[in-house]
Amino acid sequence: MNQVYVVGMGPGGPEQMTGQARQVLEACDLIVGYTVYVELLKEILPDKTYRETPMRREVERCRIALEEAQKGRRVAMVCSGDAGVYGMAGLMLELGEGYPGCQVEVVPGVTAALSGGALLGAPLGHDFAVVSLSDLLTPWEVIEKRLRFAAMADMAICLYNPSSKKRAGYLKRACNIIMEETGGERVCGLAYSIGREGQGVEVLTLKELGGRQVDMFTTVFVGNSQTRAMGGKMVTPRGYRGVSEA
Amino acid sequence: MNQVYVVGMGPGGPEQMTGQARQVLEACDLIVGYTVYVELLKEILPDKTYRETPMRREVERCRIALEEAQKGRRVAMVCSGDAGVYGMAGLMLELGEGYPGCQVEVVPGVTAALSGGALLGAPLGHDFAVVSLSDLLTPWEVIEKRLRFAAMADMAICLYNPSSKKRAGYLKRACNIIMEETGGERVCGLAYSIGREGQGVEVLTLKELGGRQVDMFTTVFVGNSQTRAMGGKMVTPRGYRGVSEA
Repeated sequence: MNQVYVVGMGPGGPEQMTGQARQVLEACDLIVGYTVYVELLKEILPDKTYRETPMRREVERCRIALEEAQKGRRVAMVCSGDAGVYGMAGLMLELGEGYPGCQVEVVPGVTAALSGGALLGAPLGHDFAVVSLSDLLTPWEVIEKRLRFAAMADMAICLYNPSSKKRAGYLKRACNIIMEETGGERVCGLAYSIGREGQGVEVLTLKELGGRQVDMFTTVFVGNSQTRAMGGKMVTPRGYRGVSEA
Repeated sequence: MNQVYVVGMGPGGPEQMTGQARQVLEACDLIVGYTVYVELLKEILPDKTYRETPMRREVERCRIALEEAQKGRRVAMVCSGDAGVYGMAGLMLELGEGYPGCQVEVVPGVTAALSGGALLGAPLGHDFAVVSLSDLLTPWEVIEKRLRFAAMADMAICLYNPSSKKRAGYLKRACNIIMEETGGERVCGLAYSIGREGQGVEVLTLKELGGRQVDMFTTVFVGNSQTRAMGGKMVTPRGYRGVSEA
């Protein structure tokens, strides 16, 4: 059985990878991935062979990895953040069914909800929902329904893919839906360029968030009813009974 | 300013920690944590000073860390999984307000939703909710509401703290609520003792899950309407349009 690894490399920097992810990448002959992540990795592991494909060529990328593994090469497919959360693990497992000699192994990593959350403090300290605003593979009505139910359930919400050139108004639409359930004063946070140059955070209200333009390297956090802004940080307590009883 | 670190150590094994988490722990004089995690760490970093407190003594644990940091010691508070997701980051930030000389820094880690997800394949490949079944700090009605709305939103769901001695019937109650919205055939998964002795996974239906007794070291995954069981794995596709268009 030839193993193909799908590896979550965390937000970017080598020190944000797990030891296991690093070991797997070091043991592989070939590393396959989206151009941006491969460029980051080349700085850390310059002596590997790399194959890059641009965005939206995910099926092709998976087939390259599986075909090379079938030939006996030790192959890793890299994803930013975690391998499973909007990553390539699922597609690799699905396509892997057509390559009976290959076994897909998933190596987890720190997804942006966690790495961005750490920069902001503890925005996801209690129950939360993770929702992508990309409607490339999901009808917008489904996204809208998820945002509304998450807000009605008083869950903190982490938004992935809050914007792109084609989807400039989506964050505003998302904020408006949530605001209908929560009002505009909910504590929110932005984490920019996590683990990369230009890294930063901002704490603001939901109403303010709706007026912002953010780029695709931003992760957005919307607090629950208990979330507090504290000296530039955003903290969602672990429950509803206050610190003294915690 | 004396920095106190809140460090997510991942599911258990040293190779599942990030490089950053390891560096921070190595640079600290004192490591504070819940007994079980401290015991795991002592095997990896035997030369550190440790302070342990049992479960539910979280406020005391934070105060020990903050007081020692105020005296000038380099202190890390460790959490299993991530530091923010049901971790100590929020409480440390809240209590830290009373220790003006101390600054709390959060170091993220791989939470059980990700590490358990990797073992199962890709159960959280699309939008998802993370909900704890512990009603220690959250009224059961709120937990119930979150489960119901998450199911109505067709989000995959990851359940933390699915059981304990006092809460033996909670997983069954949770499954019944979800089942009212989804029916009993939804693909579900269990990840046992992630990163530790006895690690294992199981894929089963929601109806079967409701009949199971699980322990507190189990993480539970409930798929969305698109989730498939595939050769002992659980895969939630990244969207609603099928692999060929992905």
